[in-house]
Amino acid sequence: MNVDGVAYRSIWTTDAPGVRIIDQSCLPFAWRIAELHSPRDMVEAIAGMQVRGAPLIGVAAAYGMALAASADPADGALAAAAEALARSRPTAVNLAWALERMRRRLAGLPPGQRAAAAWALAGEMAEEDVRINRAIGEHGAPLLAALQAPLGRPLQVLTHCNAGWLATVDGGTALAPVYRAHDAGVPLHLWVDETRPRNQGLLTAWELAAHGVPNTLVADNAGGHLMQRGQVDLVLVGADRVSAAGDVCNKIGTLLKALAARAHGLPFYVAVPSPTIDWGLGDALAGIPIEERPGDELRRVRGLDEDGRVRELRLAGEQQAVANPAFDLTPAALVSGLITEHGVLAPAALSSLRPGLRVAQEAA
Amino acid sequence: MNVDGVAYRSIWTTDAPGVRIIDQSCLPFAWRIAELHSPRDMVEAIAGMQVRGAPLIGVAAAYGMALAASADPADGALAAAAEALARSRPTAVNLAWALERMRRRLAGLPPGQRAAAAWALAGEMAEEDVRINRAIGEHGAPLLAALQAPLGRPLQVLTHCNAGWLATVDGGTALAPVYRAHDAGVPLHLWVDETRPRNQGLLTAWELAAHGVPNTLVADNAGGHLMQRGQVDLVLVGADRVSAAGDVCNKIGTLLKALAARAHGLPFYVAVPSPTIDWGLGDALAGIPIEERPGDELRRVRGLDEDGRVRELRLAGEQQAVANPAFDLTPAALVSGLITEHGVLAPAALSSLRPGLRVAQEAA
Repeated sequence: MNVDGVAYRSIWTTDAPGVRIIDQSCLPFAWRIAELHSPRDMVEAIAGMQVRGAPLIGVAAAYGMALAASADPADGALAAAAEALARSRPTAVNLAWALERMRRRLAGLPPGQRAAAAWALAGEMAEEDVRINRAIGEHGAPLLAALQAPLGRPLQVLTHCNAGWLATVDGGTALAPVYRAHDAGVPLHLWVDETRPRNQGLLTAWELAAHGVPNTLVADNAGGHLMQRGQVDLVLVGADRVSAAGDVCNKIGTLLKALAARAHGLPFYVAVPSPTIDWGLGDALAGIPIEERPGDELRRVRGLDEDGRVRELRLAGEQQAVANPAFDLTPAALVSGLITEHGVLAPAALSSLRPGLRVAQEAA
Repeated sequence: MNVDGVAYRSIWTTDAPGVRIIDQSCLPFAWRIAELHSPRDMVEAIAGMQVRGAPLIGVAAAYGMALAASADPADGALAAAAEALARSRPTAVNLAWALERMRRRLAGLPPGQRAAAAWALAGEMAEEDVRINRAIGEHGAPLLAALQAPLGRPLQVLTHCNAGWLATVDGGTALAPVYRAHDAGVPLHLWVDETRPRNQGLLTAWELAAHGVPNTLVADNAGGHLMQRGQVDLVLVGADRVSAAGDVCNKIGTLLKALAARAHGLPFYVAVPSPTIDWGLGDALAGIPIEERPGDELRRVRGLDEDGRVRELRLAGEQQAVANPAFDLTPAALVSGLITEHGVLAPAALSSLRPGLRVAQEAA
């Protein structure tokens, strides 16, 4: 997508070989490109949320393995890099999926061929993400247009966290239908949850504004009130992991919005690229590890001082006990539909996308 | 309550005549006492949330009228002061109630007697608030003890905003039963919502810690997850205005927690001093004006820098559209009970406290 009229992706390669990323830990305060030269750099970038968003994390991990293969393509070194990358964020399934796909591609190759193969596969995965998100936009935009048509006013969409192009290689997941509908002339406006404690809503507001989509930032606390007053028509979010039954693991706070949407009779949709679906997951509540992030994310806050420098301030003392679960689980029963690259599906119909099944059906 | 072993109230008088307050806009970063000398000082202290919390705002407004009466006891000057005070925070009914009570007391008096009468009435109202909160603690603590008794572990209480002693003259509303139960040896632990955008949860955590009550700060987004995982036994909040039917207007975000409590089968209690009940209110959704506060409360954040100074940082640009409703409305149907100074009541039974009715019943 464009930033100041220049087309960017959230991650790309250099000849060094190296990987460049938009450092999202500085956005929206500062525009900074970071260059990563080792798998350890990538682990730190993922854990420190310089790159974030389930789809982007998957591709970033693949590039992390490419950096590893360029440094040392031996089995032991690659296994160690994969393990460190897998532990950098425990909740997103895309990470494990990308690492497993890379492992399979490299395992049968002699070490001398692994680096080239790893860079090629990471590049394929990046292109695949862009294609998937384009398809999510194509399937989701008509849904937004249909909801807006009878209103005679802009469609009011509430979103939580950032499931925009910054969370992907390009295009976004939950925001893909928004961008596509907006570009097609569907009048819409987004309520953007701040998304404490990491304030990813600021990223969402930033990228929406950069694309010209009307949006209003609200505290995470405001959504119930807006729904009660008839100021929300649709809740639309992304996901970090989805079970085959359609249970949705997404940024902490999603569950509260899903419950409020249900209580007010509003549709609650989740944009889900198929690599985000964990087909092997049984009981989502028991089976998905919920990442507990550092308490300092609540004790401290980052912003811009009067001289335009990024600084941190303390909100609560060191001794203040903090719990900081990063994700929560929204049961499939609260989900109106899942917007995938293959179409919009009810949670119960999600299993029709199961890879083996879909290939068999397409062959039939 | 005690601060570093010294007993404080949140508001008190000086001989000047003047009023001293704990400046809550600096807490928990800095301990600052502010001195107010005019009704305009009080309007600014209320609007700027140096004093906050429905019960405290009522008493503060009464002291504002006492300052006004000392400066100029003429009808016109008092009416102007009352109007400015009434507009300083539009949602809390205590403010209107305190001003009306003061108006009635002063109206029949010659101007020369008004200042003394105003200081006396403001002092009565302060004492009354302390008495009411003590009674709320007495009625609410057995409820907490009864919920804890079968658990064999500490009672897990989730609270939103600050309904502690800082929100009152002393004692607190929602926290009054917590302090009383804790002092009586009932093991309990509080989950303290951060309460964006003003972060009043930091005040709650600060005063709980000062009293030795175990507590953990969480993002406002975390409550649904904690309830889903069985880590909350009870939601307990205060209120800024309650209708005769038991509809509860409280800090923005309360509705989301009430909906989540209902969805997870958890009790949701509201501590309500009777001056917070608006007996004249019909349809609460239509009848309560929801204060829209400045967008900079989300665009900027206040904290402590590395040199221990209170500073502000920018989170979002000036041009970022922000909506900042300060309160929301929780329908009576979601309220398990109201803890008043007269006892714990179901919402439908609240009307038994209607002043005329209660006096008649007590006389009978």
